[in-house]
Amino acid sequence: MQKTIIAIDAMGGDVGPEVTIRGLVQTHLERPNAAFLLFGNEEAIQAELSQHNSLQAVCTVHHCEKEVSMDAKPSVALRQGRKVSGMWRGVDAVKQGEAQAFVSAGNTGALMAMGKVVLRTLPGIERPAMAAIWPTVRGESVVLDVGANIGGTAAHYAQFAVMGAAYARTVFGLSEPEIGLLNIGVEEVKGTDEVKEAAELLTLSDLNFKGFVEGDGIGRGDVDVVVTDGFTGNIALKTAEGTARQIGEYLRQAMGSSLLSKIGYVFSMGAFKALRKRMDPNAANGGMLLGLNGIVVKSHGGADADGFATAVEVAIEAAEADILGAISSDIEAMQALLDDAWAQSLT
Amino acid sequence: MQKTIIAIDAMGGDVGPEVTIRGLVQTHLERPNAAFLLFGNEEAIQAELSQHNSLQAVCTVHHCEKEVSMDAKPSVALRQGRKVSGMWRGVDAVKQGEAQAFVSAGNTGALMAMGKVVLRTLPGIERPAMAAIWPTVRGESVVLDVGANIGGTAAHYAQFAVMGAAYARTVFGLSEPEIGLLNIGVEEVKGTDEVKEAAELLTLSDLNFKGFVEGDGIGRGDVDVVVTDGFTGNIALKTAEGTARQIGEYLRQAMGSSLLSKIGYVFSMGAFKALRKRMDPNAANGGMLLGLNGIVVKSHGGADADGFATAVEVAIEAAEADILGAISSDIEAMQALLDDAWAQSLT
Repeated sequence: MQKTIIAIDAMGGDVGPEVTIRGLVQTHLERPNAAFLLFGNEEAIQAELSQHNSLQAVCTVHHCEKEVSMDAKPSVALRQGRKVSGMWRGVDAVKQGEAQAFVSAGNTGALMAMGKVVLRTLPGIERPAMAAIWPTVRGESVVLDVGANIGGTAAHYAQFAVMGAAYARTVFGLSEPEIGLLNIGVEEVKGTDEVKEAAELLTLSDLNFKGFVEGDGIGRGDVDVVVTDGFTGNIALKTAEGTARQIGEYLRQAMGSSLLSKIGYVFSMGAFKALRKRMDPNAANGGMLLGLNGIVVKSHGGADADGFATAVEVAIEAAEADILGAISSDIEAMQALLDDAWAQSLT
Repeated sequence: MQKTIIAIDAMGGDVGPEVTIRGLVQTHLERPNAAFLLFGNEEAIQAELSQHNSLQAVCTVHHCEKEVSMDAKPSVALRQGRKVSGMWRGVDAVKQGEAQAFVSAGNTGALMAMGKVVLRTLPGIERPAMAAIWPTVRGESVVLDVGANIGGTAAHYAQFAVMGAAYARTVFGLSEPEIGLLNIGVEEVKGTDEVKEAAELLTLSDLNFKGFVEGDGIGRGDVDVVVTDGFTGNIALKTAEGTARQIGEYLRQAMGSSLLSKIGYVFSMGAFKALRKRMDPNAANGGMLLGLNGIVVKSHGGADADGFATAVEVAIEAAEADILGAISSDIEAMQALLDDAWAQSLT
């Protein structure tokens, strides 16, 4: 069986190799068939990697002089990191066919910029979108775009729907994922013109379109794929993260408020541990930059080794399930629909 | 001391008089000085009201033939409810000076439409905004617009900021409330053109503008007033509500998962009760339709008597603190700034 090869930005994220390499140790246990190309400072990588013999056997280290800093503007990162940074070289390894996917916990804006410049978009895709895995009461959904673009036309929404559906089919393994458009009401009269037009397009498409979903429908798991623009999606995602932290803080205060509740906490520790795990954003880590001509997965900058391993797992699954092929085959059908709609608007 | 008179849509909400009248019983205990004009079906109102002698003494019932249904389109509600529905007559009581504020748990779109038609906007205000009280780790913030409008210009955002600041000064009693603009990053380069222009305007204004806040900054209480457009604000609000329900569900499952955790639950019951109270959306009920030439407060359709009492409390405080005067005095200064910006763009 052929190995799946994943390029890794070993220096990315708030911590670097200590998290990324330890994450790969976990991935290696689950996926012994995957091999890794590690990009970054060789000395720093080896300091961590040398402690893990079994992992070492499936890793190749590519020393890079430069790192893209977490707060660099995309334009600066592109200028200074071009060809020499680990991030650029990791993306380029995908372009050259040396790796089937790239995972980075580094600077999101820089990653999107390098992804677009090096890999370009798939034929028919105008804009890549950042897709996030969102834990729900029913399981997991994919929400996109969560920040790659500001605003968008009905055609952009329709393309996001195609990409999100391909993600749900390949990574979640759903045969006919349910698609919803994020809106401020489920009635047809509400929302921006772009969202309303997108709903008309999606109704005509072959996708399993379920209509509008509201903000509270995301966590309820109303649909498998939630389509929105990058401004709204980013604010929804961060608002949900903030609310989870806020309630975690309330819970902490409540449990420490009296002797009785502290005793109760001791009895319930197992349950609280399970609860923390479900609320842990690391468990749903691995946003994918969809629409590029190559697989690029973004791990949270603050993710721990567990979280990074989850992101690498997503990259492996997407690569092995050929997500790019799934997007390409569906985007043609959508494009025909968009052309029809365009032709009709001229008659 | 003069009585504060509040008009009440007695039939509004998912339940009607059983909730609204019981809510008023609570308000009456806290605010014996307030009197109420009750609009709705007299028989239904009296059936509940007759059980509460003390409240009865400060209530006047105005029988109305029609009710606006919860799912009527605003245009239909306006046509069928004009002059005859409890909602219309309650808003009109404010217009006629018979009441200082109106509270309804009814159809939001219909309430906004009737508010605009009957009361009109304050001089200088182009669009009213729906303001929500948002519980935070630090206390409470006001977020607007959460759904009265779709999109908006920089000038609209600036007007929302003025209205939100007036709300925080009068209802929260803050002397210099901190204002933030909701955006997808705190850097100046991010966001829509409208949001970036609004930031420039607010920096020049006399308001205590703190720059951009992200979605997770709302619940953290980064600022007292969060300004956004109605599309984004509505989705953020509902996403937060959905996340809170989702975590409540996780918690319920975790606590019931084993005998030990059930024992722990018994010990911690007091703490869980306190936690539920902090997570309870009823405690922060009372969205205000700001910018109208009169005070209109929207209670959640599903709020219980506690929640309805909170909304009535907000209406009384806003009326007694003269929120309309506070908005009017600040909107003049903002208008001068907008005129200057306009004149400069011509030179």
